[in-house]
Amino acid sequence: MKLVLDAMGSDTCPLPEVEGALTAVRRWEDVHVLLVGDESRVRELLPRFGGAHPRVTLVHAADAITMQDKGLTLALKAKRKDSQTSMAIGMELVKRGEADAFVSAGNTGGILSTAYFRLGLLPGVERPGLTTLFPVHGGYCVVLDIGANPECTPEHLLQFAAMGSVYAKLALGVDNPRVGLISNGEEPGKGNDLVKGAFPLLEASGLNFIGNVEGKELFGGAVDVAVTDGFTGNVMLKSSEAVAKLMTDLIKEHLMSSPRTKLGALLAKPAFDALKKTLDPHEVGAAPLLGVNGLVFIGHGRSNAHAIVSAIHTTRQAVQGHLLEAVGSAIQEQLANLKQRESV
Amino acid sequence: MKLVLDAMGSDTCPLPEVEGALTAVRRWEDVHVLLVGDESRVRELLPRFGGAHPRVTLVHAADAITMQDKGLTLALKAKRKDSQTSMAIGMELVKRGEADAFVSAGNTGGILSTAYFRLGLLPGVERPGLTTLFPVHGGYCVVLDIGANPECTPEHLLQFAAMGSVYAKLALGVDNPRVGLISNGEEPGKGNDLVKGAFPLLEASGLNFIGNVEGKELFGGAVDVAVTDGFTGNVMLKSSEAVAKLMTDLIKEHLMSSPRTKLGALLAKPAFDALKKTLDPHEVGAAPLLGVNGLVFIGHGRSNAHAIVSAIHTTRQAVQGHLLEAVGSAIQEQLANLKQRESV
Repeated sequence: MKLVLDAMGSDTCPLPEVEGALTAVRRWEDVHVLLVGDESRVRELLPRFGGAHPRVTLVHAADAITMQDKGLTLALKAKRKDSQTSMAIGMELVKRGEADAFVSAGNTGGILSTAYFRLGLLPGVERPGLTTLFPVHGGYCVVLDIGANPECTPEHLLQFAAMGSVYAKLALGVDNPRVGLISNGEEPGKGNDLVKGAFPLLEASGLNFIGNVEGKELFGGAVDVAVTDGFTGNVMLKSSEAVAKLMTDLIKEHLMSSPRTKLGALLAKPAFDALKKTLDPHEVGAAPLLGVNGLVFIGHGRSNAHAIVSAIHTTRQAVQGHLLEAVGSAIQEQLANLKQRESV
Repeated sequence: MKLVLDAMGSDTCPLPEVEGALTAVRRWEDVHVLLVGDESRVRELLPRFGGAHPRVTLVHAADAITMQDKGLTLALKAKRKDSQTSMAIGMELVKRGEADAFVSAGNTGGILSTAYFRLGLLPGVERPGLTTLFPVHGGYCVVLDIGANPECTPEHLLQFAAMGSVYAKLALGVDNPRVGLISNGEEPGKGNDLVKGAFPLLEASGLNFIGNVEGKELFGGAVDVAVTDGFTGNVMLKSSEAVAKLMTDLIKEHLMSSPRTKLGALLAKPAFDALKKTLDPHEVGAAPLLGVNGLVFIGHGRSNAHAIVSAIHTTRQAVQGHLLEAVGSAIQEQLANLKQRESV
């Protein structure tokens, strides 16, 4: 399979991308990486990681969307026909069928906009869903939307649930993913107008909908998929990351406060390392932008080479698992359901 | 001062309330507690904590709103003229001026509804704001609304900011509290329609508005007050609590995984105890329901006697600091501002 890797994505690009690409092709014989970016910068890094490889093809891109780009600059770089950004060139390769998927650890808004303008949406999809895997007790939970759509309708949430279920089957290996609707209270009837509107749609969807969920259920591992609007999802994601950081900082401060606790910290180090690994976004690597007409995976801006390899691994699984076709079918199924219920 | 303490509030009521009341009156000579609840159950517990006290008056209430009450049952108990719940009787005492404030560790929806029906709102207030103190780096942040109003308008958020600033001055002791608007991105212009509508109102409010904030700023201690709608606030609160619990559970699991890390955990125990205390809602005790026409404080359902004493302490400070009058003035000031800007 051919995977486009955006060489100009991560905070310290293109170093992690070059190392990640060369590591990945040596690990998986079926992977061919199209490394898109500033060719001379990429080429000069190759010798540091074993040199050129027949399954790593360099594709030059004169421009890039940086982490600082936003607003009109970003929109123009994403939309203009003659855009030479690594994202635009990479996604055009996917669009023309010259690559099976696109993966980048770059500017999320840039990936989102470029995908929207270049690849468009799958037939029937109203809004793309930005997805992530939250670490929860016992594993992970697929959460969407985490920021693509600050305003949503109940129908958008239904589509997120259908697409998220398809992805949970693939990524978490569960047969009948449990779907939860994020709300301010578990009881049916709780929620804002959006949640109250989405609840009956999810109940009638044929998905394994278990009802409203709060943080306790979500982080306790009670659902495999949790859907919400992009505003709430983004606030939840950022808060969760910030709370985890606050706790880590406070633990460190308290542990460093006396010789006794310092010794304790030293002995307990393997446990803290294991915790860090459990919560490390690098382990997941990347998550899909669901609903666009092409496989697009987004990694963390802080990705190192290990995270890039994980991202390639995740993207490879999605190609093997025919994620795009499965998402397309799930959306058609929901549209048929809705039509049937309306005609009754 | 006379403080009403709902004896039938906490999960294990009335035990923590009885112990808390008797401890509080011995600690503060100016505090007189009106302990409202099932008088015989309360009376039989008195000897366990030093017996009756001249500054603890028992007021009988034949009924109570339990943690399980919801929907119509709850609404009727809150609203009916002849309601004999401890919350209704207690708040009527405040309304008639026979007590200075009401505090309960009971059903939040019950306190909210009873306050709304019995005390009403302060003149000019559109919606009451359910408030909490989030533990953040270096202290606390006043956050509202955390659940009273799942749907809000920009004007509601402006009022929350004005009321929250007043409370932050009192509770955190800061002169000019920094106010943040919770959003999915720091830049002005980011947010859902509500945030985009509230931003200019906050900018023109005369409050110390520092702009949009995300989890990083909030939990990093960059603001003293953070405002949001009750849906988002509630989801944030529950998620944050759940993430903290997940991390605690994972740390414990990893620490118990080998003899070395077990020994480390034993030595590091003082650090973990300090962390627990930092994040313990019992330390804060209670937070106000802002905007109702009377001082109403809500404690955690899991309150123990220590938490009840903290709740009484917090409520006592609010009486001493004339919180109700200050909130009323802040609302009038904002209304005058709005009127002036409209007439320009």
